[in-house]
Amino acid sequence: MLITFEGIDGCGKTTQLKLVAEMLESRGFKVHSLREPGGTDVSEAIREILLSSKSKLNDITELLLFESARSNLVESIIKPALAKGDYVLCDRFFDSTTAYQGYGRQIDLNVIQNCNEIATGGLKPNLTFYLRLSLQESKKRAGSREKDRIEKAGDNFFLRVIKGFDEIAANEPERVKIIDASGGIDETKIEIFKHISI
Amino acid sequence: MLITFEGIDGCGKTTQLKLVAEMLESRGFKVHSLREPGGTDVSEAIREILLSSKSKLNDITELLLFESARSNLVESIIKPALAKGDYVLCDRFFDSTTAYQGYGRQIDLNVIQNCNEIATGGLKPNLTFYLRLSLQESKKRAGSREKDRIEKAGDNFFLRVIKGFDEIAANEPERVKIIDASGGIDETKIEIFKHISI
Repeated sequence: MLITFEGIDGCGKTTQLKLVAEMLESRGFKVHSLREPGGTDVSEAIREILLSSKSKLNDITELLLFESARSNLVESIIKPALAKGDYVLCDRFFDSTTAYQGYGRQIDLNVIQNCNEIATGGLKPNLTFYLRLSLQESKKRAGSREKDRIEKAGDNFFLRVIKGFDEIAANEPERVKIIDASGGIDETKIEIFKHISI
Repeated sequence: MLITFEGIDGCGKTTQLKLVAEMLESRGFKVHSLREPGGTDVSEAIREILLSSKSKLNDITELLLFESARSNLVESIIKPALAKGDYVLCDRFFDSTTAYQGYGRQIDLNVIQNCNEIATGGLKPNLTFYLRLSLQESKKRAGSREKDRIEKAGDNFFLRVIKGFDEIAANEPERVKIIDASGGIDETKIEIFKHISI
């Protein structure tokens, strides 16, 4: 089973993924906790290019780099793990590409869908948690830590990204569960765990 | 005007590109000599991942990395140069992707065409020289120098790549000129220069 965690920075994806992993492991399941882009040597090398503030990336290059990292992770780790019946938890997956590169960078959504399909070979998460947070709250939580290349995009960009996640969730309510991420870690955790029946 | 040079390793692409560049420059034209993947900081970083023997790349990741490097080169260098009326000469372009990843790796040719289109934004070379060489001659010329990741693919792979270039040239005879590359540098140069009218 593939479960993905989506949302803007500061929404608590990484923390909640860890809590779900611990819960599943405590019940005896084998769990692979992954992040995108990353998870393999090749994908981590691509991640460096993507997040470095020195990289002069145009929008299509950014899109194709995310997709190349994704395809490497899917083929090397995710598909073999799913074939063994393990759980795979992923911090971001193709919904992030739709939200950030499609809605945020305003690349044609058909191009995005096409690339997502090529990179994943049609693989879809069984369940996606969209941890919904306002831009204001995201900025408050980010505080003064240094921003990477994508985090440096302006407010209008992030408002479009949020709209993107909202529309993705509205279009696929069976797969994508909207979780209010404005509260504390425990409140969010309770909301998420309600959706996991094992 | 965009002129691309295609063919398998050892066919003399790089040498002939240089000769064409020198001729054009001697006549007062501004010429940009590029190689793929490469030509920008980002594309050179991608090139390193692609050619490193340590990289564990699946076929789709390889395809998407070539396309991301291409899109960066097209947007940053090729389109601005063409807009100024300069000549752009490129050592490999999307025909290499069709031949190597399409025919060689046997990825669906529709996927290849789709990705080529996304990466170039529909840009096509005005003229392409396909320097045709047999596998036997290519291996003889390569001698004993160390091979990169892609050069390590077997004979059957390279026979499919040659078939790919042959079919590309047959499908687009107006754009793609087949040049017999089995002779010496001067012979090949004479064949190429016949097609350049300035």
